[in-house]
Amino acid sequence: MNDEYFVKKCFSLARKAQGNVSPNPLVGAVLLKNGKVIGQGWHKKYGREHAEVNAIKNATEDVAGSTLYCNLEPCCHTKKQTPPCVPLLIQNKIKRVVISNLDPNKDVDGKGLQQLIEAGIEVISGILEDDGKELNKFYFKFVQDKLPFVTLKIAQSIDGKISEAKNKQTWLTGKEAIKYVHKLRSEYDAVLVGANTIKIDNPQLNVREAKGRNPIRIIIDGRLSIPLQSQILNPIDPEKTWIFTKRDIDEKKVKRIADRGIKIFSVNSKQNHFNLKKILRVLADNKITSLLVEGGADIFTQFLQKDLFDEIIVLQAPKILGRGINGFNIHRLKKILLLKMDNLGKDIRLVYGRKLSD
Amino acid sequence: MNDEYFVKKCFSLARKAQGNVSPNPLVGAVLLKNGKVIGQGWHKKYGREHAEVNAIKNATEDVAGSTLYCNLEPCCHTKKQTPPCVPLLIQNKIKRVVISNLDPNKDVDGKGLQQLIEAGIEVISGILEDDGKELNKFYFKFVQDKLPFVTLKIAQSIDGKISEAKNKQTWLTGKEAIKYVHKLRSEYDAVLVGANTIKIDNPQLNVREAKGRNPIRIIIDGRLSIPLQSQILNPIDPEKTWIFTKRDIDEKKVKRIADRGIKIFSVNSKQNHFNLKKILRVLADNKITSLLVEGGADIFTQFLQKDLFDEIIVLQAPKILGRGINGFNIHRLKKILLLKMDNLGKDIRLVYGRKLSD
Repeated sequence: MNDEYFVKKCFSLARKAQGNVSPNPLVGAVLLKNGKVIGQGWHKKYGREHAEVNAIKNATEDVAGSTLYCNLEPCCHTKKQTPPCVPLLIQNKIKRVVISNLDPNKDVDGKGLQQLIEAGIEVISGILEDDGKELNKFYFKFVQDKLPFVTLKIAQSIDGKISEAKNKQTWLTGKEAIKYVHKLRSEYDAVLVGANTIKIDNPQLNVREAKGRNPIRIIIDGRLSIPLQSQILNPIDPEKTWIFTKRDIDEKKVKRIADRGIKIFSVNSKQNHFNLKKILRVLADNKITSLLVEGGADIFTQFLQKDLFDEIIVLQAPKILGRGINGFNIHRLKKILLLKMDNLGKDIRLVYGRKLSD
Repeated sequence: MNDEYFVKKCFSLARKAQGNVSPNPLVGAVLLKNGKVIGQGWHKKYGREHAEVNAIKNATEDVAGSTLYCNLEPCCHTKKQTPPCVPLLIQNKIKRVVISNLDPNKDVDGKGLQQLIEAGIEVISGILEDDGKELNKFYFKFVQDKLPFVTLKIAQSIDGKISEAKNKQTWLTGKEAIKYVHKLRSEYDAVLVGANTIKIDNPQLNVREAKGRNPIRIIIDGRLSIPLQSQILNPIDPEKTWIFTKRDIDEKKVKRIADRGIKIFSVNSKQNHFNLKKILRVLADNKITSLLVEGGADIFTQFLQKDLFDEIIVLQAPKILGRGINGFNIHRLKKILLLKMDNLGKDIRLVYGRKLSD
């Protein structure tokens, strides 16, 4: 089917901006006239022109009478940085609009298509709908639930161990897996680890083995116990390190860290564990639409136990540890759903989603 | 390449007898004359005609001047139930012989091809050699090492647990995985479990969910502690239940079990654990060329720790148990090698081989 072909083209155009448009969705657009592509564009960066605008701008001939393909419903609301696209399409005499998904944003959500139809434009929606939702899974989750899309990323042995012993750093997976993790970091708005991971691994949590921008680095550290010399507290982009800690913490240390340009969030916490849902809400308030949780065991366990995840990515090395530290110390069996499996060098990648029913 | 095509045809003919020719190899043969297949055959059952004989017998025209394709080197020795094939091929004026693997049996091992060459027959060997070795991996292992090919088959959660609690039966994988395990049982000469597995699961260890014959069922039970009413001690084919126990065991119970037609092997055992290598030698002496180890944790751990395995098949269910029983309680990291991965319903199948070097 022709429509599917051009919607797929929109997906790949949209994907070029992965990591750069949040909290906006990834959108690509193609203009077709007399069977020929006469223009294409994508939303390149948050705050810049929408895909539809770019496609019209790039058109090599008059767009009147053409079909606009776009993976997401054109916008019609004015509560934002750029003018709405629907009037532009009407004005430019677009004849037909083909989309994959409705925009779940309440200010759009069908209203965009409605206005196009009322202007006499032929509208088709729902082409490759699931693929479109997968492409913009961060955006859909964020808009619908006002929470970031949360992925737990765990590197483990065949027998589910993440390290050989407590407080011991263990490299399990190979370089292809490392590259893949860095690619993920360039696509997620933020990564999150617990204080123990900082103390044991002293990671940078930035993007070195792939192209793309660094994510926000979030550390859950109730007692503000990570050493001042940690790499995460001394990065070239300190505004990207955010620490969640308790309210009644050593003011001096808070100041020393904040003075470096690092953001500190003081939140209430009854006992040892934070209210993770509350932290996710704070992150959403700060425009974090996607979160890659990188460990360690205590953090994985809490997210899994409280059902605060959308996907789990298991990078499994061809090793059996026998003794060692489990990634998930939950108390009750959790069923999930295999979405994808493939090789990653000598390791394998398993992507699981939530199982909504039995 | 034409030769590859017909060697592959031999593989698929050979495979028809899976489970029925042990300790012989799986062999198929195709006769080609003037670009036309004029005969084909396979070794159907231990003690019966070889594939080459069947192909000649089935030939629709005079085989003189034809090419014989065969996955294994034709035999030339007389220490066996059927006459050797090489003289038959010479006698029938076969012009060309194309094979995949040399027969590692010391009485053949190149001598078959040598005799063919000396008789003026053109010989090509080594076509799809690795595939041929995979097809006959049981036979190659058995002939070369005088040990069965050992596969550890473990059904586990993502986090490497085989059950929810000690002495508790837990079904992790779905029906596709069960069918697959029954298929495996029909192909392996024997399956092996520990006494605990009998006590907890009370399995039949036979083939119900697939076509094929039952394997020999081996139980490692040092204290001869499994209950007399266990299904494994009351099968319709008691001669297929073999128990390995210690020498100084309750004579009365031994007699009661043996009277049912069940085979009891009394072996020396210093402490709690048997010398597994010795047991494997006894099995090889009893013509067991392939062994599927089905658990439990103690058995898996011993086989893995002592490096007494050729493959590990992990059937991984999309579940996280958190608490539970580990399949492998080894003390030192073991690296293995991913050979295959695929879906099995909602579960996945991972096949690992031995890692011979770093």
